[in-house]
Amino acid sequence: MKTEKVSELTTNRLSIYLRCLNELSVFKVKTISSQAMADQFNLNSAQIRKDLAYFGEFGVRGVGYYVEDLRQHLMKILGVAEKRRVAIVGLGNLGMALANYQGFSHNNFEIAALFDADPEKIGKRTRAGLEIQDARKIGEIIKREFIEIVIIAVPATAAERVLEEVTEAGVHAVLNFAPVHLNPGHGVKVKNVDLTISLESLSYFLANPSDEALNVHYREFLRQDPGSNGIGG
Amino acid sequence: MKTEKVSELTTNRLSIYLRCLNELSVFKVKTISSQAMADQFNLNSAQIRKDLAYFGEFGVRGVGYYVEDLRQHLMKILGVAEKRRVAIVGLGNLGMALANYQGFSHNNFEIAALFDADPEKIGKRTRAGLEIQDARKIGEIIKREFIEIVIIAVPATAAERVLEEVTEAGVHAVLNFAPVHLNPGHGVKVKNVDLTISLESLSYFLANPSDEALNVHYREFLRQDPGSNGIGG
Repeated sequence: MKTEKVSELTTNRLSIYLRCLNELSVFKVKTISSQAMADQFNLNSAQIRKDLAYFGEFGVRGVGYYVEDLRQHLMKILGVAEKRRVAIVGLGNLGMALANYQGFSHNNFEIAALFDADPEKIGKRTRAGLEIQDARKIGEIIKREFIEIVIIAVPATAAERVLEEVTEAGVHAVLNFAPVHLNPGHGVKVKNVDLTISLESLSYFLANPSDEALNVHYREFLRQDPGSNGIGG
Repeated sequence: MKTEKVSELTTNRLSIYLRCLNELSVFKVKTISSQAMADQFNLNSAQIRKDLAYFGEFGVRGVGYYVEDLRQHLMKILGVAEKRRVAIVGLGNLGMALANYQGFSHNNFEIAALFDADPEKIGKRTRAGLEIQDARKIGEIIKREFIEIVIIAVPATAAERVLEEVTEAGVHAVLNFAPVHLNPGHGVKVKNVDLTISLESLSYFLANPSDEALNVHYREFLRQDPGSNGIGG
């Protein structure tokens, strides 16, 4: 594996490939070409080949990729071959929704601790039986429970303080839902989830419907006549 | 403005530029160069220039961009110069968190209708005073309230049916939080929010900390000696 910097856009695409391979694996598909994978999941086959080639020689000429093999490799590259222990700070509606979300554990993220400052919430349990703990014990429990990733779901005004506390306790990776820009120290990565960006991408589509229509027509054209390259007849 | 297809990655970057310009606007900054904007918000100046040049001539030599002017242009491009009316279907913890999220209205997305199938929830109101309506009335209310975007926050098993209902009522843009792949009809755009992808990007960073360290050092180097191009002394 090369050691140059890999952008977040690349790791996001690797995540999507892993999602596709998981699905293929469920349906017992053994091998798949980059082209077939692109067709089935609306991806770009050249991009798939380029992204994967960066990490090694996974494709086999005339065969494509071995689904299970590539799946294991991607999990290793993404650092999810083993369970990652996650804590959620802030058990409002959003924190509670995240605590009950099944998708995390299916992908090797284990919600292992929950924290809130509200005495009404401390001691209560989620559907999965995990207890909400006193936010004053964050540092101590994060160390004891070997938490590696913290999800911040507190109000904007409390987010920076939570970041400081969990960083001090040794956490290097934070997913931030609070609508505020956080300043992590050296060696700490904060990823912000901004749902407005998703809505704006939909809004762009509403303002420019022709963009997508063009795309759909092009794809349908290719499907109807996969042999044509669009030049001549 | 050109009419070629613009990728979702581009519109996501435009959203981020708009976010930055909003912040600059609050601090009464009148003009900014692409380089200063890149430095301040950890962006790529060449990418900023390229992205914006695609939509017109916004920069002025020796001045940079006029903040307020560019902000208005970006809002127009992203289709958020006027309010977009949004409905949420499914008022579990996640739907409720979204219904109470302030960030949407600050960015011209107005939550205008809420739906749930649970009789216990129907008739209840959010903090903002909006009433949860019977999911059986989705089609009728969506038309009456001129809803343009629907956020699906129902369980996976109910998502496809909700998509069909809102599409039939004339909605062309859907933000889907249900952990299931939806198949929209022609001319309908579904954007899936998959939080596992964000966690995997953090996990990649934990598995490959040197990537980020490299990046940080490079940036610090540039800051200490902005005149150096790295060649010779």
